[in-house]
Amino acid sequence: MMPNQIENLSFEQRHGKDRVRVGRVWRNRDGRHFFVEWSVSISLLSDCVAAYTGDDNSDIVATDTMKNTVYVKAKECAEQLSVEDFAVKLAKHFTSVYQQVTCAIVKIVEKPWERVSVDGETHDHGFKLGSEKHTTEVILKKSGALSVTSGIEGLALLKTTKSGFEGFIRDKYTVLPDTRERILATEITASWRYSYESLFSFPQKPLYFTERYLNVKEVLTDTFFGPSKEGMYSPSVQSTLYHMAKTVLKSFPDIAAIQLKMPNLHFLPVNISNKDHTIVKFEDDVYLPTDEPHGSIQASLSRIWSKM
Amino acid sequence: MMPNQIENLSFEQRHGKDRVRVGRVWRNRDGRHFFVEWSVSISLLSDCVAAYTGDDNSDIVATDTMKNTVYVKAKECAEQLSVEDFAVKLAKHFTSVYQQVTCAIVKIVEKPWERVSVDGETHDHGFKLGSEKHTTEVILKKSGALSVTSGIEGLALLKTTKSGFEGFIRDKYTVLPDTRERILATEITASWRYSYESLFSFPQKPLYFTERYLNVKEVLTDTFFGPSKEGMYSPSVQSTLYHMAKTVLKSFPDIAAIQLKMPNLHFLPVNISNKDHTIVKFEDDVYLPTDEPHGSIQASLSRIWSKM
Amino acid sequence: MMPNQIENLSFEQRHGKDRVRVGRVWRNRDGRHFFVEWSVSISLLSDCVAAYTGDDNSDIVATDTMKNTVYVKAKECAEQLSVEDFAVKLAKHFTSVYQQVTCAIVKIVEKPWERVSVDGETHDHGFKLGSEKHTTEVILKKSGALSVTSGIEGLALLKTTKSGFEGFIRDKYTVLPDTRERILATEITASWRYSYESLFSFPQKPLYFTERYLNVKEVLTDTFFGPSKEGMYSPSVQSTLYHMAKTVLKSFPDIAAIQLKMPNLHFLPVNISNKDHTIVKFEDDVYLPTDEPHGSIQASLSRIWSKM
Amino acid sequence: MMPNQIENLSFEQRHGKDRVRVGRVWRNRDGRHFFVEWSVSISLLSDCVAAYTGDDNSDIVATDTMKNTVYVKAKECAEQLSVEDFAVKLAKHFTSVYQQVTCAIVKIVEKPWERVSVDGETHDHGFKLGSEKHTTEVILKKSGALSVTSGIEGLALLKTTKSGFEGFIRDKYTVLPDTRERILATEITASWRYSYESLFSFPQKPLYFTERYLNVKEVLTDTFFGPSKEGMYSPSVQSTLYHMAKTVLKSFPDIAAIQLKMPNLHFLPVNISNKDHTIVKFEDDVYLPTDEPHGSIQASLSRIWSKM
Repeated sequence: MMPNQIENLSFEQRHGKDRVRVGRVWRNRDGRHFFVEWSVSISLLSDCVAAYTGDDNSDIVATDTMKNTVYVKAKECAEQLSVEDFAVKLAKHFTSVYQQVTCAIVKIVEKPWERVSVDGETHDHGFKLGSEKHTTEVILKKSGALSVTSGIEGLALLKTTKSGFEGFIRDKYTVLPDTRERILATEITASWRYSYESLFSFPQKPLYFTERYLNVKEVLTDTFFGPSKEGMYSPSVQSTLYHMAKTVLKSFPDIAAIQLKMPNLHFLPVNISNKDHTIVKFEDDVYLPTDEPHGSIQASLSRIWSKM
Repeated sequence: MMPNQIENLSFEQRHGKDRVRVGRVWRNRDGRHFFVEWSVSISLLSDCVAAYTGDDNSDIVATDTMKNTVYVKAKECAEQLSVEDFAVKLAKHFTSVYQQVTCAIVKIVEKPWERVSVDGETHDHGFKLGSEKHTTEVILKKSGALSVTSGIEGLALLKTTKSGFEGFIRDKYTVLPDTRERILATEITASWRYSYESLFSFPQKPLYFTERYLNVKEVLTDTFFGPSKEGMYSPSVQSTLYHMAKTVLKSFPDIAAIQLKMPNLHFLPVNISNKDHTIVKFEDDVYLPTDEPHGSIQASLSRIWSKM
Repeated sequence: MMPNQIENLSFEQRHGKDRVRVGRVWRNRDGRHFFVEWSVSISLLSDCVAAYTGDDNSDIVATDTMKNTVYVKAKECAEQLSVEDFAVKLAKHFTSVYQQVTCAIVKIVEKPWERVSVDGETHDHGFKLGSEKHTTEVILKKSGALSVTSGIEGLALLKTTKSGFEGFIRDKYTVLPDTRERILATEITASWRYSYESLFSFPQKPLYFTERYLNVKEVLTDTFFGPSKEGMYSPSVQSTLYHMAKTVLKSFPDIAAIQLKMPNLHFLPVNISNKDHTIVKFEDDVYLPTDEPHGSIQASLSRIWSKM
Repeated sequence: MMPNQIENLSFEQRHGKDRVRVGRVWRNRDGRHFFVEWSVSISLLSDCVAAYTGDDNSDIVATDTMKNTVYVKAKECAEQLSVEDFAVKLAKHFTSVYQQVTCAIVKIVEKPWERVSVDGETHDHGFKLGSEKHTTEVILKKSGALSVTSGIEGLALLKTTKSGFEGFIRDKYTVLPDTRERILATEITASWRYSYESLFSFPQKPLYFTERYLNVKEVLTDTFFGPSKEGMYSPSVQSTLYHMAKTVLKSFPDIAAIQLKMPNLHFLPVNISNKDHTIVKFEDDVYLPTDEPHGSIQASLSRIWSKM
């Protein structure tokens, strides 16, 4: 955001509304229902410095009004749409209606409600909560410059073999032995930026981004695990992460960049002994799962012509 | 637990170890892996009052020793077993090895790791975290008296129609209108007690309780939703809960009692207006999902010859 | 609750509203403000089985009405009152107004807003959130039989010395060494039942229970730590817990029973070495704090003429 | 971090260890103990791309080694030190010992253990957990370029009056009325960057930054509330935030910039009515506290010669 200058100080600000929750049902004539639940966060960059430095709120969009707008826009959507399309719709509203607003940042997290099946048939109006979540962040400037970054939160994966870590730096504080056999577990946070940089080039196909989300998730998962029988040996979280990121960029030409955060959730070998004898001896069988501390590995990979 | 009497006071106590985490891998010769992750809580009723009233720890099983025992017992399991079987194994250890221990209470929560598929084939060693969790609580007395209560935590279900609530008490503080069309959403906590009351009658079939868990979950889910096309009208959470509990008892003769907690997670109709005009008018389309406050509905249903 | 009998099944149920949040401000004429924030949970035992077994809601108090009642009653309180008094007020309403309601259970958690000081003077209308929370649970039957149990949640205490654990059972799975020097840390959950068993004997003095809460908290804390210089040696969590419970019963004649849950939040000695040399050697200085696993020690102490 | 170029891709990466918990006790000869508990996160920018693109871990500092280093360095500290000083100590280690490491980012959260008093005297070895937390983030480059940003997490403040919001933009989606009387509540996250840009200028005075932290917190709190009797009217969260930030910069010459996040945690006026009559009418007395949605207001203020 462009900082303002006040006396000898540089000032930057934004305001908005977080965690606006909305559920939307669409009902087909044949009785089939479609449903989404979103938690929307709106943040506006806006010419409203007088509200900060004085008592003048005349350039402030009330956050209560932002909240109402989420419901108005959800109502206006006659057909089911992707979380990305809804975020863009909101961002367009705020940057076009208010002269003070120079940029709108809309983040949405979609709750993973999944259609259930009963007796082998998908249910017309029944849903069950799944695990990992689809997210998006849309940044739209008054100029029309656009950035759409979608992601996954909470994708927890684990493989019981085909993972090792060896040959790293050994110094006087090193204890960890080399290994070619360990459990690899992580909870992936992924975010990828699409290459669409204005509303003009933005895909119009219904649910385009919903499908992309599912496809990216599948590529990430399949690359993490490798084939169902052989798997794919991981020499480090770093290597697996890089391979996953690269495969996504290779598979989806309209993804300009991807960032992956893959904490290493350690499963420690269990060895217990007292001074007299061994109580438990580890044989690739019994592990102690831990949340803290955990390794933190993250990286981003971008096509050269783009920036993330 | 039997209270002790000290001077003019009645005293009851227990001690144990909570959140002992263990992961266990079993590897078949053909490369197929099986994997569970458990969080184990052990609580012992024990003749050790002197530790409380004096400084005498000589009758105390150290909680650190309890933790070690979890790993020893996990190691001993040569084949994959249900969370119920593992809890019983632990409880047997504590009540048989220590003369001071009169009763062992073992609770375990199983993390919902599910085998993944890659290219349409189930993976040999790849797992992904699902949502709701399988729990168990085993209470075993030195006498051999046994209680096994299994359950589900976090089963979140939602249906977009076929739910209403009408005809309830109306008084001067009542605002809620009657309705025959609303969203019904809940996060179910279920627990059911098996009828096995001693180790002698306890089923020996491998993974018997794992299968039961899946079956009970399916019955609860199917009854909540009804058939895939017509669904099943719910006149109240109360009625749906009762129907679910009754169907479980009818379906599984070795379940003696079931308790269901089904908070009513409200999806409020969105109507927004100011003094001049209507901004959003609800037409069974836009909802405000809320976590607080929420209705709390719970009940237990038991076969007459048993108690929960 | 009295179970109902339906066919060959025994049935128990309750329903209510959880997490009803209310803030209440009282303004003195001199500009001094008093403020509380409560999260109220109401649960009713009620003759309304037909709502479960049939579609008949005519004996159901809507949970939405319960929520409204919280606000009505908060409004009616012209003077600041204790959380216990407010819970009793609500319970009286539900058991007296509705013929179907045989028992009301009201639980309240008070947010620990504390008056701030500015320039050494307490502020007229400024508050800051503290840590541990005051809770209460009031059970009132239509007959007038009353139970008032108050408590503390989240009182985390730690002492860096004067704690040990030795002389416990040693067996083949024991690793823990005896010690007379360790950190003792816990997060106390306390609840104590007052001896008032009907509305007639209930204390009328304003803020009586608020003061009691502060007094009990002080007794628990002081007993945990001992004098400011010498402290008080703790031979086990069990012993310290018992001493604390006993001191509360001795200090407050109108407390009939107390329950303490004192998880042992371990601070492990840090010793690190590899096969070549010692990297860190513990000298009562560097500890690894852990949340899981943790010891779980709980006990309740009651005057003989009472039951908890 | 400097991106690497690989084929036609730009690549950035970091790895480290999160949530390394350490407790440290210092014991004075006179029996007085000092104690801190820290959760340390280390992140290294490092020349180790081959670990990502190939199987070569030879330039990787194992995160397990990072963890060990935390304990080694805690051990080395003979005197109590500020969380900032400890973070700098760690960062110096990683950037000086490993040629591959170009930059170390060390974040620490200090648990708010506060010395207790018993019978009016501060206790020699007793501590109680408070509420808001002291944080720091130190970034140190191999070149010696330094950035130290400290902060507060979870400082929840509330005032029951002297707050309003009026004169904002009104449009067709606006419902919120103007007001000059409301509750103002927030949970402040503050972070301020010190002006020290190299190790040479870094203050050597023991516990300098610990004292600064307390002073900044006091200035923020006092400015939020105003004098104890009159208070200070807040025309908006924006205005109060700006005033707080400006006062910090004015008070502390070695603070170069400050960022404040002050979500507006709404306390909604309670008005309840049905079609027949008013049930609760708001008179600045009964409020509904909400966590979601909430306003999100954040800003940063920097001296012109600096950047945040």
